[in-house]
Amino acid sequence: MTAYRSMEWRQDKLVILDQRWLPAEVRYLECSDYREVAMAIREMAVRGAPAIGAAAAYGLALAARSHGDSSVEEMRRHLAVAAEELRSTRPTAANLFWAIDRVMGRVANSKASLSSDLARAVLEEAHLIALEDVETNKRIGMFGADLVPDGARIVHHCNTGALATVDYGTALGIIRAAHEQGKRLHVYVDETRPRLQGSRLTAWELLQLGIPHTVIVDGASGYIMRNVGIHLCLVGCDRVARNGDVANKIGTYNLALVARAHGVPFYVAAPTSTIDLEVIDGAGIRVEERARDEVSRLDGQELVPEDSPVYNPAFDITPAEYVTAIVTEVGIAYPPYSESLPRVVEEARRWREALRRKPQRPLG
Amino acid sequence: MTAYRSMEWRQDKLVILDQRWLPAEVRYLECSDYREVAMAIREMAVRGAPAIGAAAAYGLALAARSHGDSSVEEMRRHLAVAAEELRSTRPTAANLFWAIDRVMGRVANSKASLSSDLARAVLEEAHLIALEDVETNKRIGMFGADLVPDGARIVHHCNTGALATVDYGTALGIIRAAHEQGKRLHVYVDETRPRLQGSRLTAWELLQLGIPHTVIVDGASGYIMRNVGIHLCLVGCDRVARNGDVANKIGTYNLALVARAHGVPFYVAAPTSTIDLEVIDGAGIRVEERARDEVSRLDGQELVPEDSPVYNPAFDITPAEYVTAIVTEVGIAYPPYSESLPRVVEEARRWREALRRKPQRPLG
Repeated sequence: MTAYRSMEWRQDKLVILDQRWLPAEVRYLECSDYREVAMAIREMAVRGAPAIGAAAAYGLALAARSHGDSSVEEMRRHLAVAAEELRSTRPTAANLFWAIDRVMGRVANSKASLSSDLARAVLEEAHLIALEDVETNKRIGMFGADLVPDGARIVHHCNTGALATVDYGTALGIIRAAHEQGKRLHVYVDETRPRLQGSRLTAWELLQLGIPHTVIVDGASGYIMRNVGIHLCLVGCDRVARNGDVANKIGTYNLALVARAHGVPFYVAAPTSTIDLEVIDGAGIRVEERARDEVSRLDGQELVPEDSPVYNPAFDITPAEYVTAIVTEVGIAYPPYSESLPRVVEEARRWREALRRKPQRPLG
Repeated sequence: MTAYRSMEWRQDKLVILDQRWLPAEVRYLECSDYREVAMAIREMAVRGAPAIGAAAAYGLALAARSHGDSSVEEMRRHLAVAAEELRSTRPTAANLFWAIDRVMGRVANSKASLSSDLARAVLEEAHLIALEDVETNKRIGMFGADLVPDGARIVHHCNTGALATVDYGTALGIIRAAHEQGKRLHVYVDETRPRLQGSRLTAWELLQLGIPHTVIVDGASGYIMRNVGIHLCLVGCDRVARNGDVANKIGTYNLALVARAHGVPFYVAAPTSTIDLEVIDGAGIRVEERARDEVSRLDGQELVPEDSPVYNPAFDITPAEYVTAIVTEVGIAYPPYSESLPRVVEEARRWREALRRKPQRPLG
């Protein structure tokens, strides 16, 4: 697997690779309390929809551990409080809620009479989520690699690599899988303002993987498509509505429009945990608005006059009509998405159950 | 006029507002040698197509002055050398070449037998270029303001204000004129990576002018159009080909594509000095590629891993089909541009001649 890990459970602590310091430094953040995990998610020390889902699950494991001496009932109450706090960290990514719901579902169904047994179940579920995430990403990579021709030039937005997941990555997992198959690739890395996940994180990961790439500003994608020629765009996502509308990092929608104008296919990599069938379309997705500082400051330097207002939506919604296909862990969903998405979600549920029934799976 | 000036001829020196320090500081750069002007243009202490045209003209005035003791012939030779160096500073903006050609044309046609007379003619031509630029921009503002409805929400890219010109601005001049007419406006300011002319300069100018605005990252324009609603886009340009293809700051083409997808009119403000009838279409426009550092560093902070390549085209070409209209100092040019552009260029030539024949014009 990857030489670095976005997170790791080690000696009853969650060790998070603190992404705010990359690419300059590889620093780790050791969390022994769920509130530290919540803070790490809120401040984007850990980010990427699948990664924050897994981190939140481990946060619940920490919450359970810290109440090891309580009664089962007290632990349940405490977990409910922790779940609420973790849920409140970031509103857009579906995986966060999916992972918390999953752990809390296990808690609700548990017949444990000892709090230590309940805590063990919570940790086991967190490990399962983490393990499944890696498996999920490798399958997304496998299915998605078929969409990538040899010699492909790809535009990629934000970061969707091992850093954005537990390991391997989603859209970057597809690039990685195609690379592992021996295909020659060149990735044009959108720097992805304001947080620069592209230039800071994706470029760093592509370097580790030895995959040729070039960093560009977000506004240059059209110029590149017109003058260099691009075969496909690949992005991840934070939430997919039932109709196929995709919430992803701000700038994704612009990229999709630019791709359409050049006839370039626009693919979204999405673990089914990102698909929210309860939400009819993009209008139902809450878009997080983040702090002015992300746009107006960099390393202490003021980039915007103090009195000028800044608007910083962290995500945008790409309407389904601009999404060529959505790559999941059980295959590729094509339009009409209102038919294909419920199908892949059901298929993934069955796949996950089968995976769960496999005996002797290591727990991380 | 504006409280600040992008440049001013003062005591036989060209004083340039050094835009690299804005918005944090208002610093000036005093140039007494044409090579200092060339450096200021190259390093973007002064930028914006009309501003660098005027600065180059003043650079020639400095070159003439420094050879005040030479013969007329020596001064002509020296001016030719200076013109070559000034031409080499930045390849894309048409105004740079237009202004240099204009001053050198005057030199060629001059019958001066004393070098002091020739130097005076060069300075006079530079002053004329500067004066005409302000007049040109106010007329662009006047014509363009008709395109701006009361209550308009506008997306603006890069900087096209008083800072990008000798005074008043081109696209920002239109916004300014509409504001002076009492129209209520809100400007969404693309920050404009990599040099951030939007957040650093345009926001700063709009603050001085008291025009309501909000800074956004370049990738957010589609989200804003879809969710806030935008009435028009306004940009400047560095060169317009005969067919209406427009070279402007990188990110302009993406914005034009995004505008088209939302049915938002896309207007380009262009003094006719920016229109290059010799160039058939955008393919003939040389796009400057600038240094990696503009993308990879900010205030000493490394934003891109050292070993990751960066591609930094400073401009892009927006095909004429995405340009709703081009606003010039003699009126608004509509498609087909291959017919309307030669017409406005000819009309502007006549207007400029008439302006020149006006007696007793102050020379700055």
